[in-house]
Amino acid sequence: METPSAPGGTRRIQAFRASLFHFVADPLEDGERAGEFFDDGLLVLGDGIVEALGDAATLLPTLPASATVTDYRDRLIVPGFIDTHVHYPQTDIIAAHGEQLLEWLERYTYPAERRFDDPAHAREVADFFLAELLRNGTTTAMVFATVHPESVDAFFEAARARGARMICGKCMMDRHCPDYLRDTAQSSYEDSQALIARWHGRDRLLYAVTPRFAPTSTEQQLEFAGRLLDEHPGVYLQTHVAENRAEVAWAQQLFPWSRSYLDVYDRFRLLRKRAIYGHCIHLDDADCARMGGTGAAIAFCPTSNLFLGSGLFDVDAARRHDVRMGLGTDVGGGTSFSMLRTQAEAYKVVQLGGGRWSPLSGFYHATLGGAQALYLDDRIGNFAPGKEGDFVVLDVEATPLLARRMNHAATVAERLFALAMLGDDRNVVATYLMGTRQLV
Amino acid sequence: METPSAPGGTRRIQAFRASLFHFVADPLEDGERAGEFFDDGLLVLGDGIVEALGDAATLLPTLPASATVTDYRDRLIVPGFIDTHVHYPQTDIIAAHGEQLLEWLERYTYPAERRFDDPAHAREVADFFLAELLRNGTTTAMVFATVHPESVDAFFEAARARGARMICGKCMMDRHCPDYLRDTAQSSYEDSQALIARWHGRDRLLYAVTPRFAPTSTEQQLEFAGRLLDEHPGVYLQTHVAENRAEVAWAQQLFPWSRSYLDVYDRFRLLRKRAIYGHCIHLDDADCARMGGTGAAIAFCPTSNLFLGSGLFDVDAARRHDVRMGLGTDVGGGTSFSMLRTQAEAYKVVQLGGGRWSPLSGFYHATLGGAQALYLDDRIGNFAPGKEGDFVVLDVEATPLLARRMNHAATVAERLFALAMLGDDRNVVATYLMGTRQLV
Repeated sequence: METPSAPGGTRRIQAFRASLFHFVADPLEDGERAGEFFDDGLLVLGDGIVEALGDAATLLPTLPASATVTDYRDRLIVPGFIDTHVHYPQTDIIAAHGEQLLEWLERYTYPAERRFDDPAHAREVADFFLAELLRNGTTTAMVFATVHPESVDAFFEAARARGARMICGKCMMDRHCPDYLRDTAQSSYEDSQALIARWHGRDRLLYAVTPRFAPTSTEQQLEFAGRLLDEHPGVYLQTHVAENRAEVAWAQQLFPWSRSYLDVYDRFRLLRKRAIYGHCIHLDDADCARMGGTGAAIAFCPTSNLFLGSGLFDVDAARRHDVRMGLGTDVGGGTSFSMLRTQAEAYKVVQLGGGRWSPLSGFYHATLGGAQALYLDDRIGNFAPGKEGDFVVLDVEATPLLARRMNHAATVAERLFALAMLGDDRNVVATYLMGTRQLV
Repeated sequence: METPSAPGGTRRIQAFRASLFHFVADPLEDGERAGEFFDDGLLVLGDGIVEALGDAATLLPTLPASATVTDYRDRLIVPGFIDTHVHYPQTDIIAAHGEQLLEWLERYTYPAERRFDDPAHAREVADFFLAELLRNGTTTAMVFATVHPESVDAFFEAARARGARMICGKCMMDRHCPDYLRDTAQSSYEDSQALIARWHGRDRLLYAVTPRFAPTSTEQQLEFAGRLLDEHPGVYLQTHVAENRAEVAWAQQLFPWSRSYLDVYDRFRLLRKRAIYGHCIHLDDADCARMGGTGAAIAFCPTSNLFLGSGLFDVDAARRHDVRMGLGTDVGGGTSFSMLRTQAEAYKVVQLGGGRWSPLSGFYHATLGGAQALYLDDRIGNFAPGKEGDFVVLDVEATPLLARRMNHAATVAERLFALAMLGDDRNVVATYLMGTRQLV
């Protein structure tokens, strides 16, 4: 991926002066040393790529005369948030009442997804969805489209217009769904191939092979999903597993030969690096070990797991087996696009389960941890030199309650934790992609 | 309680034109008939008391010439929200990390409560707290002060200045707490008596005898609490019960003669009408039956129960025994003053437990259901003629996401549910107490 230089060959140097915070390690292992904080800091980008970060007093004198300096001195800049599991076609059915997973899909989700064969509708929703992500400080997301290839085109066109690093794929579902959403193993294979050729690696866009979940795919289709991954190294996989007990029972019934629900995916070579599994609530120890051993990652979706009554994800089990983990909003099963709100919900799930969670764990999994789950930590997730310049400018005192609470917070960790618990989109002053401020 | 008439003896007639919604019954029993909705409605107050509500076209011609009409035609007016369990001295430790109940009290709460022997500090916090309640549309709350009588005076003075209907009491705690927060059975009895004489029934203020929870009271102190209630009919009781498993085990150990934690309170005649018990998570069937039989009420505090990892309240068990139930934010164990956010968290708890919850149940328990729990449904909770004119003016489209979601909501119930799931203080345009708009 090439970043265009400014006219005349000179590089565009931008500096942003603010309080800066990012991670270099996992705070649950390295405590406060896992984070770097610069109270009066400077983030320097060259053609949109991080060149340096540090104290403003040190770095300002090193800037070339052509550099622009944007003053956010009363703000906090952190890396752009990463949402590892979200469905853009479900934007309009967010907060639908009264069902758990399988009934919720039938009653609300499938009817809403039907309209995404219309490119104009898909593009309109994609634009709103991306604006919401950016309003909430999310700069990268792993996104489910619908079964329609048009829905992927619409999403990627909208993301490309903004210059966002986004991952998306067409749902593969050839059984146990309404006729109007059903593909075939063969058509899903061919459509996915064409979409990979058209979009994967174009600008900042990446493709994910997307069997919705095992119950809506035949074994033939799952076999084709594995073949797509084998044929296209670097392409992602996204799907769902073990979200809800009725779903788990259904999967066992449909694949009676499997040791577990996760084992179905394993059989078709779908456990591997760059394979991200939403939910993972009802896994056993052998499943977790297999996730860790293969390099597959978990998208922990706390809001959705609570809203749909799916259950409580066990962070400690995932950690025991070194499974990579990002956070997901899972809109429309989740009820907020905010990765701050998502951190708050994650904390509640961990508290109910008695698991370990640093005051900084939420921010970690929403940034560097999410990037590691997506194997994108060479590109995004923190401000190490060479990373892409995606970041969020936060007002940590955006509400009267937060302004007051910050006066009673002694440490950076305490401030960030309070921000995650009490914050929302109001805290997002601006979102930048590769150094370019987004208008939302 | 007399409402002063306007000068010259004429009554002040105010009319508010808006969409109006309120409850006349429980939506889980009566479905949509439990609510009344007027798309272009008029709420008419006489000297701050509800005189009429209905369609604007019908009521406008009946108004006297002296009436004022406030036009909120693009807004929704609902009864003021009722928060049945909240701690004003914990405002500044909201969102404190990493502990469950008993350790959280030791580490954060008790040190914060220490300063409330200072009337100036107490008043400053009380003013901020009341402003937050009103910013969130909450017009009545049942509030814990600290052990210091000064903290009760400060709260009631602040509430009286605003004309709010509030219930508050001094914590009684004569053991198992820091020396600086400890009273004695005798001093707590005398202090509570003096506070009742000073505040109960003054303007709109009501007193609650407030043993913090059984483990921090001797049997002598609990006996005095019962005596205070016997001696002062109409006075409230508020306390905590069965929030956390370690707390339950501790109570059993401290009161080995008791059948259950709740039974401790029962022994001292503290189960009765106007006794409101926070949490009630770990009750058994006999406990629930006893709550229902005595007329004691539950304050269901979902956010706090999740944030402190206390457990999942069983709404169906409470309902089986006809126990009255309000919602509580439980700040600072809870992390939001918003009764909309609290409704969303309540829904999640119910979903996890598989309980019954109408799309309107959240609004019901936040208004009329809360008023019934407090035995104040002759005064507040809906817009029946004769009720006090406390209400909230809501913008249901206060965020881009809500504005969009409302376009996909077909019914009033669907709109109110989406508002509860996605809404917060931004939806509150104005809060009125007895017809007077509050400046916050």
